[in-house]
Amino acid sequence: MDKTSNRIANPLLVVGSVALDSVETCHGKRDEILGGAASYSCYAASFFAPTRLVGVVGTDFPSEHEAFLRARGIDLAGLERAAGRTFRWAGRYADDFSTRTTLDTQLNVFESFRPKLPSAWSESPFVFLANIDPVLQLDVLGQVQRPRFSACDTMNFWISGKRVELLRVLERVDMILLNDEEARQLAGKSSLSEAARAIAALGPKAVVIKRGDAGALLFQGDDVFAAPAFPIDNVADPTGAGDSFAGGFMGYLARTGDTSPASVRSALVAGTVLASFCVEDFSLDRFRTLDPSAIRQRIGAYASLVRFEAPQL
Amino acid sequence: MDKTSNRIANPLLVVGSVALDSVETCHGKRDEILGGAASYSCYAASFFAPTRLVGVVGTDFPSEHEAFLRARGIDLAGLERAAGRTFRWAGRYADDFSTRTTLDTQLNVFESFRPKLPSAWSESPFVFLANIDPVLQLDVLGQVQRPRFSACDTMNFWISGKRVELLRVLERVDMILLNDEEARQLAGKSSLSEAARAIAALGPKAVVIKRGDAGALLFQGDDVFAAPAFPIDNVADPTGAGDSFAGGFMGYLARTGDTSPASVRSALVAGTVLASFCVEDFSLDRFRTLDPSAIRQRIGAYASLVRFEAPQL
Repeated sequence: MDKTSNRIANPLLVVGSVALDSVETCHGKRDEILGGAASYSCYAASFFAPTRLVGVVGTDFPSEHEAFLRARGIDLAGLERAAGRTFRWAGRYADDFSTRTTLDTQLNVFESFRPKLPSAWSESPFVFLANIDPVLQLDVLGQVQRPRFSACDTMNFWISGKRVELLRVLERVDMILLNDEEARQLAGKSSLSEAARAIAALGPKAVVIKRGDAGALLFQGDDVFAAPAFPIDNVADPTGAGDSFAGGFMGYLARTGDTSPASVRSALVAGTVLASFCVEDFSLDRFRTLDPSAIRQRIGAYASLVRFEAPQL
Repeated sequence: MDKTSNRIANPLLVVGSVALDSVETCHGKRDEILGGAASYSCYAASFFAPTRLVGVVGTDFPSEHEAFLRARGIDLAGLERAAGRTFRWAGRYADDFSTRTTLDTQLNVFESFRPKLPSAWSESPFVFLANIDPVLQLDVLGQVQRPRFSACDTMNFWISGKRVELLRVLERVDMILLNDEEARQLAGKSSLSEAARAIAALGPKAVVIKRGDAGALLFQGDDVFAAPAFPIDNVADPTGAGDSFAGGFMGYLARTGDTSPASVRSALVAGTVLASFCVEDFSLDRFRTLDPSAIRQRIGAYASLVRFEAPQL
């Protein structure tokens, strides 16, 4: 059913990391499982729109992961297989998931990665630049004709280390998604509202501040939208939640083709719902058995979660 | 206009501290300003319902503060004036309000306080036991005939130090409001949903977890409601926000007399809105100029803040 409607949706191009993660949480330990911002984003988006992945893996990347992504209809024509080892990340979460410790990062083939888009992809109406070096984000923007809607993510490392390049990205994207600490760091403001306004002044007309299990804030001009997270009882592994959020968000925008402020709000809810599934298992495993009816059901549960009758005075 | 409708509302009885606070934030420093959980709760509640304050002050308590509370129609027949000095608290907030440091606590007359309710108040249909020694909370419950709806707050100090007494309070109240850390501590669970369910099993049919600027969660059986905080650009002083939240919440319930799950959701929104005003100035100062039309306007702004069209899939 969703595949039929995907055919009429606009394709979403995603550039970002594809990784092998080793993760430890109070629910267990997994070694070298499928991870990376592009993997999570593309998979979450694929429930809503046809998705194109730009990234790189090494010769050691298990073919089963490629098959898994391809089976969802994700177009891997932009996934380069380079000589060398795949990007690896290892981390451990505190029992209450309040903090995580990075144990190891090996860039490997990602170190010399230069995105090369299949020529047909230059006309990608929706573009998501996941958290990678802003130089590569600019590189991708240079290879696409002005998309209808583009968004980027980033992180503390680039905000401090490649600020000039990041500011050039911000001049060109329609939306940025980042977490609260990153927003404060980028803007130099402790109030999130003020930080969002300062970031919007750098270019993007929409600013999304991700707050983990405290939900997200969306700033579009003077319009503010606050969306709580969907409470999950048994979080297995929060890795990729933010990327799944962004992927669901952008995939939904691509699906509707409507980038009005109201539609961007709906898309944020779609992202919130996809993120809530992501954390229920390690890696992308919860997505393996996810189908549109389960997503529809959780959208309904989310609407019930936040519904109220306004107090009368 | 609100005074007219208050006449038909049910009275709310509040027991808790009345204090002189010395507070330092990035917006300034104030010495010996009006504070205390009962002051904030009663004042916030007074916009919705007739309110009765049970507490104690010393002979040094400025009469202007009493006059200020009385001018809102708060009934001070339960406010004892004891020999000695008024309860004092001093604290300093980090510039981003993420943490606060208590600099000084002087219990003073609060140390030997035993609540004595005016006999007419034994029939108080709505009762809020603000954060005080659970022994005093039980004492108050013993002096009222079974109220239609009662709620309590508490804190880490009582959860660890007077657990047995607190559990006896929990067996008798309809609702508890506490922050996320307190909920985790009381339940011994890191997941907030699990903590809420564990706390509900101790007695209260509604559990409200306050998360500061991340909003609040309300658990009523299997029903969960998530409400973001109303974003405030320039927080002057967060002191009393949680008490104003509780006061607005309980005041609204008393006003409507409706304790159905839907009404409790609306009341939580009323509390959220009152808390958002509280933080805009030091002490109860923002309330001095607050009127029902400003509250109505912010309720409207809050509804816009969280409104969305459900994603279609």
